[in-house]
Amino acid sequence: MRQEENTIEGRNAVLEAFRSGKTVEKLFVQEHSKEGPIHTIIREAKKQRAKVEYVSTTRLDQMSQTGKHQGVIAYISSFEYATVEEILAKAKEKGEAPFLFLLDGIEDPHNLGAIIRTANLAGAHGVIIPKDRSASLTATAVKASAGAVMYTPVAKVANISNTIRELKEEGLWFVCADMDGTPMYDLNLAGPIGLVIGNEGKGVSRLVKENCDMTASIPMHGDIDSLNASVAAGVLAYEIVRQRRG
Amino acid sequence: MRQEENTIEGRNAVLEAFRSGKTVEKLFVQEHSKEGPIHTIIREAKKQRAKVEYVSTTRLDQMSQTGKHQGVIAYISSFEYATVEEILAKAKEKGEAPFLFLLDGIEDPHNLGAIIRTANLAGAHGVIIPKDRSASLTATAVKASAGAVMYTPVAKVANISNTIRELKEEGLWFVCADMDGTPMYDLNLAGPIGLVIGNEGKGVSRLVKENCDMTASIPMHGDIDSLNASVAAGVLAYEIVRQRRG
Repeated sequence: MRQEENTIEGRNAVLEAFRSGKTVEKLFVQEHSKEGPIHTIIREAKKQRAKVEYVSTTRLDQMSQTGKHQGVIAYISSFEYATVEEILAKAKEKGEAPFLFLLDGIEDPHNLGAIIRTANLAGAHGVIIPKDRSASLTATAVKASAGAVMYTPVAKVANISNTIRELKEEGLWFVCADMDGTPMYDLNLAGPIGLVIGNEGKGVSRLVKENCDMTASIPMHGDIDSLNASVAAGVLAYEIVRQRRG
Repeated sequence: MRQEENTIEGRNAVLEAFRSGKTVEKLFVQEHSKEGPIHTIIREAKKQRAKVEYVSTTRLDQMSQTGKHQGVIAYISSFEYATVEEILAKAKEKGEAPFLFLLDGIEDPHNLGAIIRTANLAGAHGVIIPKDRSASLTATAVKASAGAVMYTPVAKVANISNTIRELKEEGLWFVCADMDGTPMYDLNLAGPIGLVIGNEGKGVSRLVKENCDMTASIPMHGDIDSLNASVAAGVLAYEIVRQRRG
């Protein structure tokens, strides 16, 4: 575990921080705000005895790392990355076949956040990212996750291929997304599964692809090359949801 | 039809502008670039006898509206919005049941672009947006569309509800996305269809929802409230693709 970002910005993300029981050390709120969502957040802060400081928009703008604080910034106790074991334990605890996301080099923190958000809602047990050549849980990623990082564990590993090999011994199957794959509807994605999403430009790396059991393609009926990475992750994740549903 | 933005930024978007046969009036390229994708773009520009000007990164940064030009900015003859009739004609021409996206107040140009990108690849015939309270085809939206705006017609209408009523007379069915709807897998989405996506925060407006024939929900297995709007649009669009396929 290691310390990372501890700033949360934006209404959804801050509200989820409170609701998920994170320790908010201090909440900065835009002064004179009359907006409902801001007042909901202040109410939560008071309920949890967090320090609240009313500041000018200029001050919030200066503090903001995302440029989109929406009138609220919270300082919380540092995020902690989970371990792969903790992610598997979560699946076991729920009595569910493991469903993991593995991100092979997602570089855009907006995409990272949006994918963690999708992982949460698709019922995945965790997200695995590599230590190098990947976006981290920065303030931008946390905001884009709409608070999902508070619930869905994110593990950082040295090498995605090695992790895939280790998890295969735990009975997981791995499917990666690639244009030359089998249409996703024709694959069996219902068991214990790891969904591998590649880099925005380069896709899944060769070595990682070789370690996957299946390659799934999303049918493309258009003129351009590919979906946005977080949209592609969502489409594939929900095909898995459909198949797991029975 | 009316004139809008005429700047295209980013490698994918610029390359698609050339490939789709748009008239590029001038191409600005980062000087001394040795990168392959940049050279591919320069080759396309020469093939089409577009003027090419080599400029410094500083100059490109100044010109950029998105802040993410990736070394290339193109000026093209203005975008034109299509009409709803032209979108329907496109479906007819292809001999396909119409498949339209209607965006009820998408405000973020990144989401607008990503949704047009998805519409293109899902094989939709066009995207309809309202004149007011909606993101437009700005440089940011065009970049996020990865060039899809060059192929997928976008129409602007005064009132989404009126358009839905008119299109119903053409035989289309309308499905909107909402959390309290029927799970999308249990609806028949295979015929001539309009997929209605609501605003990022507020969802589909009441009046628009009342005009829809069906309300579809995406199963939510997590802790937070909702998917990113462009991810939700992708998930729903591909359920339609799956059903149309069979």
